[in-house]
Amino acid sequence: MTDVIAQLTDALGEAVVTDAARLGAAQADESGHRSSAPPLAIVNARSIDDVQATMRIATATRTPVVTRGAGTGLAGGAIAASGEIVLSTLAMDRVLEINADDLLAVVEPGILNGRFNEILAEQGLWFAPDPASRAISTVGGNIATNAGGLLCAKYGVTRDAVLGLKVVLPDGRLLTLGHRSVKGVTGLDLTALMVGSEGLLGVIVEATVRIRREVPGTLATIASFYPGVRDAAAASAAITAAGLQPAVMELVDPTVLRAIDRHVGSSLSARGNAHLAVQFDGPGAAEDAKRALAVIADVGGDADLTTDRAEADELLAARRAAHGAIAAMGTTLIEDVSVPRTALPAMFDAIAEIEKTYGLTIPTLAHAGDGNLHPNFVFAGPDVPDEIWDAAGELFTAALKLGGTLTGEHGIGILKKRWLGDELGDDQLQLQRQIKQVFDPLGILNPGKVF
Amino acid sequence: MTDVIAQLTDALGEAVVTDAARLGAAQADESGHRSSAPPLAIVNARSIDDVQATMRIATATRTPVVTRGAGTGLAGGAIAASGEIVLSTLAMDRVLEINADDLLAVVEPGILNGRFNEILAEQGLWFAPDPASRAISTVGGNIATNAGGLLCAKYGVTRDAVLGLKVVLPDGRLLTLGHRSVKGVTGLDLTALMVGSEGLLGVIVEATVRIRREVPGTLATIASFYPGVRDAAAASAAITAAGLQPAVMELVDPTVLRAIDRHVGSSLSARGNAHLAVQFDGPGAAEDAKRALAVIADVGGDADLTTDRAEADELLAARRAAHGAIAAMGTTLIEDVSVPRTALPAMFDAIAEIEKTYGLTIPTLAHAGDGNLHPNFVFAGPDVPDEIWDAAGELFTAALKLGGTLTGEHGIGILKKRWLGDELGDDQLQLQRQIKQVFDPLGILNPGKVF
Repeated sequence: MTDVIAQLTDALGEAVVTDAARLGAAQADESGHRSSAPPLAIVNARSIDDVQATMRIATATRTPVVTRGAGTGLAGGAIAASGEIVLSTLAMDRVLEINADDLLAVVEPGILNGRFNEILAEQGLWFAPDPASRAISTVGGNIATNAGGLLCAKYGVTRDAVLGLKVVLPDGRLLTLGHRSVKGVTGLDLTALMVGSEGLLGVIVEATVRIRREVPGTLATIASFYPGVRDAAAASAAITAAGLQPAVMELVDPTVLRAIDRHVGSSLSARGNAHLAVQFDGPGAAEDAKRALAVIADVGGDADLTTDRAEADELLAARRAAHGAIAAMGTTLIEDVSVPRTALPAMFDAIAEIEKTYGLTIPTLAHAGDGNLHPNFVFAGPDVPDEIWDAAGELFTAALKLGGTLTGEHGIGILKKRWLGDELGDDQLQLQRQIKQVFDPLGILNPGKVF
Repeated sequence: MTDVIAQLTDALGEAVVTDAARLGAAQADESGHRSSAPPLAIVNARSIDDVQATMRIATATRTPVVTRGAGTGLAGGAIAASGEIVLSTLAMDRVLEINADDLLAVVEPGILNGRFNEILAEQGLWFAPDPASRAISTVGGNIATNAGGLLCAKYGVTRDAVLGLKVVLPDGRLLTLGHRSVKGVTGLDLTALMVGSEGLLGVIVEATVRIRREVPGTLATIASFYPGVRDAAAASAAITAAGLQPAVMELVDPTVLRAIDRHVGSSLSARGNAHLAVQFDGPGAAEDAKRALAVIADVGGDADLTTDRAEADELLAARRAAHGAIAAMGTTLIEDVSVPRTALPAMFDAIAEIEKTYGLTIPTLAHAGDGNLHPNFVFAGPDVPDEIWDAAGELFTAALKLGGTLTGEHGIGILKKRWLGDELGDDQLQLQRQIKQVFDPLGILNPGKVF
């Protein structure tokens, strides 16, 4: 072990950190989970060369490596433990190219999504992947988890925005995957395979991504309030059934709404128990919003419309504050099931049933436009009680029955490993493990995660 | 061999065809290529069970299998040769579900893209993947090649429209990949890996796809004419540089324009040498088209605008007739390079250079909105002359230099195998072969294709 640190220091100098506080921080992420002992060292890679040098040493010494960006993951995918090297790509944060005519950009993995969007905005451009964490999460991390967010029903998931990747393999070889063109079908699509691979297959060291021009026209944003969460879910279903395609449609249940009010000092819960924010963009936005208002009135909602951008940003900022608001209630296990959007009311029924069975309150928010729910389990102390794992298990079973998935955008990481086989089935799980072995025959990349 | 046919007939009865004419037809596709000897037999699968039974016999007897839809491929990917079983999924052509509220459909692989869209249109819905062959190609084939088409810059490629797949492995096991929800990140994305895998990894027997609601508003279509192909390319670049996003932008060079006129009896070439069709949809279409007209006038183009749908369909039908029009000129090798859209003029320069070097005319059309070009080599006789392969090789080198790809939407099949390594590099090629081996350890699926 000291030999590994010595080799790393020889090759990488001051990029290698063994400071106890820094090592301790790498034992956790935003999942609330923590490994039992600190890793060996952190390498703050500054270049592709640094990543390659680290991986060569890791392979030569058979040392496990956990790739890490900003550590904002919610599934424990970037948590490091005893004997592991943390390969941080956070310092590789340059925007290497912005090409407005080809609508593509080339970035290093460590750039924060929010920062990248600030830079793009100077040229009237933006990057569609929009996780709620965008101010604090990296583009590399977004790619490694195939991050979702608020805009997916209209603007797609992260995978749809990635044209090409540079990837360092466990043995230090550098691969160039994909292309700069919109289309490309040469061989198997390893770019798509890398997206969402949670650090299992290689280290993403550069990404060529699709960017978009700012959407022209007014932004029309609706804040609407309902007696209960099922009414809000019914309103969201009625809006899409009316043929409308909001850019954003965010649902918050009563417990979360009150938590947000406490956390940011708003008074949303004075207007109703459940909240649905609906935002339209593009040239038809004002017209679409008017139609949505009529649909909301029909189902008994109470709604306001704004075309003021600052007011709209404030409204969505409240939604983005939900994670912090819930975390302030206790230790939180954030779940992330996803179902076809029409199954949203049925999924809320299943959650109510689980609440009753286990005597729990499960504060829930949802990306209602795409059917992705975040039910939260809040408890005291550092460890998830068995009873809560049991309740979470029932949640997953319900989502799978409705044609959905264990995880819509956070990933499997450590937290959902035990249910992986329930969704994939044994045959697919076996294939996935074999693919992992093709990329990482020694099993040194993020061991113990996902599989 | 007779034993294989006997086993197939025992298991599948009249689904097994050994008629010489039918076997002969399976030796070719629309690439102009033909295998040297007919396959063993064709299995016209009617169900997933039929596919599983066929694959079990193929595995037990180590017999190669070529999966085939409508046989409209342009790269030789579904051509069958001596000793091979052709597994046709053309008879598996049912639409199993259309869900307008969740905007998804479940289909069997053999349904024609055009037929599927007719059925969807009855409910005001459509399926975005739009290859020029859509009237005659299957959705299964579109998925197996990650088909592109006319609408990709705005509406994405086939991969973006596939949520989940059922796949039969070489040994007959059935896998269920993906989900019905918009989001889903459980494990490695094998759904995306299957899209564009050209029959190498498994047999696609069912697909859950994203569908869309008909785009509201007028369709505004521009026909524009230019002195030369480079001017048309410059116009397309100027349109996107003006921040406009056409749904369709199709470029035709002088030789192809005259061939279309001869083939369908139009008189487009009377108006100019090169043609660019530009179509806008959505609520802003009329406004966008007006702006595009101004851009076209600025670069010296001569343009007409129509908002009449029948007129627009006629215009795009001429574009869709290009393949037939060129085929009428002789045996054709259709190429399919793709470059970032701003590199389109540079790619036309490279084509002109190759024409000069080889003393050839290379009739070319392009999906200008996404930078995908189809340069066509026309020659006499059944076999591609060496000189034309050399010229094609230079074309690929030029596309790769510009950040593009050998193939934007047709695939590697047989025709581009020899250049595969130039794009992927040795390390990636090795990984791709190993992944193939994970799915197909005996190497019985589409042997000799791609790799």
